[in-house]
Amino acid sequence: MSVFFKNSALAKVFESGIAALSSEENLLPEAIRAGIEAGTMVLLGNPAHKNLKPVLIGSPSRVKINANIGTSPLLNCAQTEMEKLSVALQAGADTVMDLSIAGDLDAIRDGMLNLCPSPLGTVPIYATAQTYLDAERDPCDIDPEELFAEVEKQAAQGVDFMTLHCGLTRRGAEWAVSGERAMGIVSRGGSILARWMLKNGRENPLLTDFDRLVDIAVRHNVTLSLGDGLRPGAGADAGDAAQFEEVITLGRLARHAHARGAQCMIEGPGHVPLNDVEAQIRIIKRLTDNAPLYVLGPLTTDVAPGYDHIAGAIGGALGVRAGVDFLCYLTPAEHLTLPDAADVAAGVMASRVAAQVGEVSLGRPQALKREAVMATGRSALDWDLMRQACLDPKTLEERRRPHREEEVCAMCGKFCAVKMLRD
Amino acid sequence: MSVFFKNSALAKVFESGIAALSSEENLLPEAIRAGIEAGTMVLLGNPAHKNLKPVLIGSPSRVKINANIGTSPLLNCAQTEMEKLSVALQAGADTVMDLSIAGDLDAIRDGMLNLCPSPLGTVPIYATAQTYLDAERDPCDIDPEELFAEVEKQAAQGVDFMTLHCGLTRRGAEWAVSGERAMGIVSRGGSILARWMLKNGRENPLLTDFDRLVDIAVRHNVTLSLGDGLRPGAGADAGDAAQFEEVITLGRLARHAHARGAQCMIEGPGHVPLNDVEAQIRIIKRLTDNAPLYVLGPLTTDVAPGYDHIAGAIGGALGVRAGVDFLCYLTPAEHLTLPDAADVAAGVMASRVAAQVGEVSLGRPQALKREAVMATGRSALDWDLMRQACLDPKTLEERRRPHREEEVCAMCGKFCAVKMLRD
Repeated sequence: MSVFFKNSALAKVFESGIAALSSEENLLPEAIRAGIEAGTMVLLGNPAHKNLKPVLIGSPSRVKINANIGTSPLLNCAQTEMEKLSVALQAGADTVMDLSIAGDLDAIRDGMLNLCPSPLGTVPIYATAQTYLDAERDPCDIDPEELFAEVEKQAAQGVDFMTLHCGLTRRGAEWAVSGERAMGIVSRGGSILARWMLKNGRENPLLTDFDRLVDIAVRHNVTLSLGDGLRPGAGADAGDAAQFEEVITLGRLARHAHARGAQCMIEGPGHVPLNDVEAQIRIIKRLTDNAPLYVLGPLTTDVAPGYDHIAGAIGGALGVRAGVDFLCYLTPAEHLTLPDAADVAAGVMASRVAAQVGEVSLGRPQALKREAVMATGRSALDWDLMRQACLDPKTLEERRRPHREEEVCAMCGKFCAVKMLRD
Repeated sequence: MSVFFKNSALAKVFESGIAALSSEENLLPEAIRAGIEAGTMVLLGNPAHKNLKPVLIGSPSRVKINANIGTSPLLNCAQTEMEKLSVALQAGADTVMDLSIAGDLDAIRDGMLNLCPSPLGTVPIYATAQTYLDAERDPCDIDPEELFAEVEKQAAQGVDFMTLHCGLTRRGAEWAVSGERAMGIVSRGGSILARWMLKNGRENPLLTDFDRLVDIAVRHNVTLSLGDGLRPGAGADAGDAAQFEEVITLGRLARHAHARGAQCMIEGPGHVPLNDVEAQIRIIKRLTDNAPLYVLGPLTTDVAPGYDHIAGAIGGALGVRAGVDFLCYLTPAEHLTLPDAADVAAGVMASRVAAQVGEVSLGRPQALKREAVMATGRSALDWDLMRQACLDPKTLEERRRPHREEEVCAMCGKFCAVKMLRD
């Protein structure tokens, strides 16, 4: 048995969840175990997170969707975020990340952990930085000990995965802010750490003291989501030296952590033109030993604020085809404001479309079966079957309601090609 | 001078529009003329369409977007369709097709021609079939003379382009309905013509008498949009023999028509899995001498009713990268009901996102310039510049309004990565 299943936190989650997971994923328990041991799959689930349904990420398990929620200084209402959590899960999100940066962060996180039977992720540096920003202190004065203490606290609280920008090196940060980039640094955590390094003239503490994070991850089965603080924030920046400096570092850290029994995912870009998506994904997968890849977008144009869920779905679908395992949604609010509940639902659905399109393109059996059921339903004008096969039965019913007594839909009426041909 | 510019209707439109077109498209007049002569570009514009701004379609001109509107038997309100026409143009559609199949079709078409300064397209067989369906007669009894008379009438009325399913052969129709397909025939015009052929035991009159259409097209500068009556209606049917039988025929017809001075576009799929989009587009372009390709979708999953504009944008973006010139929108209402005004706007915007993503991936200078302006705006937190660069300034302003006095957006507030790094 590998180092992984000597890990009692992971073993506990694995044993409790494997029967359900095996059935849902249509994978043998041994295949799942082998994927986790190889580091090409991760099993999200912190034993301290009560009533949790663990979630498996990594090929060939189903592609998963994450929804980001959380307060911001200008829109700070914990109750709204709890409602968004429910909306995200109802729309079909597999995981949720609490990115709150305003209010009582411990209480919000606790509330979400209680409310959420799916894995919950966080970005611990936000909580540490918040205490500085709220005190009108510069977060580049953060004491690294506070950051490690925050990670430990959130792990004990039950957080299932954490974004940690461990691969952001001083060299990478210098390149990113050298003026060569169109957009510099657009990751909040990346921006804080880069400034910390540049001001203090020291290397990233999450990198130099990485083993402290590995230790916490193993003890609590917190999956390390190795963050991309230098992800491109404009298509023009995609694939530059700063980005790949970080990817290379992340790959080496993932290998190191894996050898010590910690589960890791890699976070990916970012703004990437369509012509570069496949190349980026394949190279990132190669540099990170095929660790599960968790992608924001990729966002295939910079000029679609209001429609970033669509620009992201385009990149996401192609990304899944190239090897992405886990899609972080983008909502219509991206780059404009904090998403509301409708944005959350729209974002989850756009990501689910992208995942399905990508999985169909890979010939994944469950995705193809769903397509086949839909075609059978459509050719028989069988609306019950269509409702069962479609990604969003509620919307299908709502749009169809005014003409539900008709065999055909209101687009064509008696002009329905299927009906005309059949009759 | 080629046969094309001996054509007085086309020459008239060309002369009147070339100065504006050259400036808008950033192409020399000679390049546009050469593209039209080669058949790789078409200039949409019927001299009988008053106050028309002609539109150029075909690489390397900008990718264009079409919005389908029109009445249906179950939602039959001409006024609503006129409003949808205005919404489509405001959202940025380059052309509109009137697919009305209920009400006074001549009056609706006339109203749209008067209202629409952009090219208007139609599917003439709808009007002919409507007279049969309304009289409770079977449209497979259509007299071909009535169909040709309808085409002539609409050309005289000012219609700029017409979908005509000339490439649908008896052999192709037989294959499509043989039971080998998941979905048979999903094109309304294709379904009517297939039934006509199968019932009457005769070849498609639009094919056998194609020269009559060519003659009308030349006289009125109506662009023939050679329709894909056998386009796949399920991903499982994409690329089958029936589809390519029609594509091959369309390519040969386009060559024939082009040699006689008629402008032609080719209509493309349809439901196509992501892994086949590029291959389909490249093969269709090859088989049709790189005639402008006008694509519905491609729709990359069957199971996303309510989100077909997104599934279509994924296929459309990849399609543009592979050679698509003209995107027909899909709306959230596709497969469910007739689109309303909000659906129309959503459909146009999704297609514009797809076109921009595709053009960026091709390195088209105007698309890249737009991206660069946006990155400059974002890195300077210059919201005016962002508004100028983005695809939908109105939505940007609406979402930003509650916090417009802030330098940052409400997603991050003082946590803004760009602001933190700058300050």
